[in-house]
Amino acid sequence: MVDTLLIPGPIVISENVQKALGTPSVSHTCPEFVAVFSRTLQNTRKVFRAHPTEGQPFVLAGSGTLGWDVAASNLIKPDEKALVISTGFFSDSFADCLRLYGADVDKIDAPLGGVVSPDEVEKALKKTKYRLITFTHVDTSTAVLNDIKQYAELVHRVSPETFIIVDGVCSVGCEELQFDKWGIDFTLTASQKALGAPPGLCVAVISQRALDFALSDDTPTRSFFGSLKRWSPVMKAYETGKGAYFATPAVQLVNSLDVALQEILQEGLEKRWAAHKKTSDWFKGKLTQELGLKLVSEPEVSAHGLTAVYVDDPPKVSSFLKQNGVVIAGGIHKQIASKYIRIGHMGVSAVDPKLNHIPRAYELIKQALQ
Amino acid sequence: MVDTLLIPGPIVISENVQKALGTPSVSHTCPEFVAVFSRTLQNTRKVFRAHPTEGQPFVLAGSGTLGWDVAASNLIKPDEKALVISTGFFSDSFADCLRLYGADVDKIDAPLGGVVSPDEVEKALKKTKYRLITFTHVDTSTAVLNDIKQYAELVHRVSPETFIIVDGVCSVGCEELQFDKWGIDFTLTASQKALGAPPGLCVAVISQRALDFALSDDTPTRSFFGSLKRWSPVMKAYETGKGAYFATPAVQLVNSLDVALQEILQEGLEKRWAAHKKTSDWFKGKLTQELGLKLVSEPEVSAHGLTAVYVDDPPKVSSFLKQNGVVIAGGIHKQIASKYIRIGHMGVSAVDPKLNHIPRAYELIKQALQ
Repeated sequence: MVDTLLIPGPIVISENVQKALGTPSVSHTCPEFVAVFSRTLQNTRKVFRAHPTEGQPFVLAGSGTLGWDVAASNLIKPDEKALVISTGFFSDSFADCLRLYGADVDKIDAPLGGVVSPDEVEKALKKTKYRLITFTHVDTSTAVLNDIKQYAELVHRVSPETFIIVDGVCSVGCEELQFDKWGIDFTLTASQKALGAPPGLCVAVISQRALDFALSDDTPTRSFFGSLKRWSPVMKAYETGKGAYFATPAVQLVNSLDVALQEILQEGLEKRWAAHKKTSDWFKGKLTQELGLKLVSEPEVSAHGLTAVYVDDPPKVSSFLKQNGVVIAGGIHKQIASKYIRIGHMGVSAVDPKLNHIPRAYELIKQALQ
Repeated sequence: MVDTLLIPGPIVISENVQKALGTPSVSHTCPEFVAVFSRTLQNTRKVFRAHPTEGQPFVLAGSGTLGWDVAASNLIKPDEKALVISTGFFSDSFADCLRLYGADVDKIDAPLGGVVSPDEVEKALKKTKYRLITFTHVDTSTAVLNDIKQYAELVHRVSPETFIIVDGVCSVGCEELQFDKWGIDFTLTASQKALGAPPGLCVAVISQRALDFALSDDTPTRSFFGSLKRWSPVMKAYETGKGAYFATPAVQLVNSLDVALQEILQEGLEKRWAAHKKTSDWFKGKLTQELGLKLVSEPEVSAHGLTAVYVDDPPKVSSFLKQNGVVIAGGIHKQIASKYIRIGHMGVSAVDPKLNHIPRAYELIKQALQ
């Protein structure tokens, strides 16, 4: 019997996603795979709500972290200014990545569990010219949800030429994200989060103006494997039904992502977002109201794909759940790492009530605390 | 009916490797997966014939290409000299990667289908102090096999402090490679080559002295996702049976690589190398002697995991084989790309005669040419 995996990624994959994974190797340039990869890229646009023809989707063998490298090494030049709006561990790591590739990074830290006020962002944007600003839509360390729509409007109003970069890990597929309508320039996620595929793929979309910047001769590329100059023609070829080569794609992982994206789109994004919200609201309500627990994230800025909640003895709770076949995650935010647990509720675990994953996790937490 | 895949990677995977791939997601830090990853890393040492405790193995989500980034961004400082011994397309791309990360690259080009003479390498090493020298054990564009043992002896004699970097794509698992005994400092390969796993993992081993260099405060890391400073403690933890985090590993791909490596080691490396040689010798013999075809690689420096052979009408031959359920690859070396075909014979296709893959490919090529 396999444990029920309720960490904030990897998540439980559907039967059909698993079937698409366990397939024979095929040539990365054969017509059958080109058709799969083409559909995967087109559906990536749809799941990000990106423009149907402008800009570009990318699906790369690698972890979500590779998406930070892509942004940091292609969308800003060395010594240019970047502003990182930090809501935890992952925002801070993105800042480290930007610095490594030569960006001059300013960082505004949210209070633990909260968000940075729009006023503070506005003040910073008015004071300094930034090439790019980064937001972590959902910081997986704190379960804080940023209001990307509101921030994006602000950036467009105050500093319209600044690229808006959104780390969409634990958001794309479970939180509302409107890449095109909100005017976002780059969003990345990882296959094993709310997309519901296995780990091993970085999935990203870039806007046309950010792509033009990256492809310009004036922009020095600082990563080889993450080079948009190298990948852009390859992804363009695949999306339009032709094979091309820079580095071999992870064929079976792309097969499984293809199925996962189709499942999301068949259900419909709005329905998907609503189902995650419903599951999350129910779970957080029970934990706080019935068990009297305190969330790490402030209630009004809490994510819907995971819950971070303080408990007295996290290892005890986690191991009790593990003994009962449910795997959850520990804390990762350095200030409070030993004081809380994280439960993921993305993908099938959130949208398929028949599985009973989250009610079961709740009951087990309740038992563990008694 | 799935086509028989005879390109120089991805290759046909065994049934058990495929089964290990199509498995549910599990936590990347749960004891079960840590045990799998630990064994995978230990077996990586064995398959590379690396030291059992010194140096370090790495298994990263990404393509083989990522291994070039790791070498170029960790094992040489900006403006230091690198010497690339080029036997084709892939050696040249490695040189591009080194340049991108700031190395001052000298390149010696072999004649098409041949190798660079040791005398020339010796002359270059005596004239200039190089931080590293790269060899492509098997250049997948030409099927040329470099004599790494001979070159390594030469480097150790003439310039012992120069790091020896071996691109082991299409070599590790099918050609003799003695990482430790020959004193190699870094070798990379991709999971979908002679290791017999699906694509999506970069598999590499680094020597202790090269690791010390990479981890030194004096060596600036120029890649975030490919940073040895970031990955080294994580791989060390996994190898010794503890979970750790930098970026999420591709859990199911690691499961399948684990099985693939066990299959290689159960058979024994010497047997495996011999089986590849036998299949290759038979195939090349038939193509040249019975069909009168000419190999791209000179006979005495021909690889054993693939064959590159000139034919009059490559697209006609390839599509005839495809119609008969066998997929081969076209040319990729820019000087002759439209003039030859490439047939991979790695892994089960080379070592399991019952599958009849290579004799069947030979018969089909013969028919296509008639």
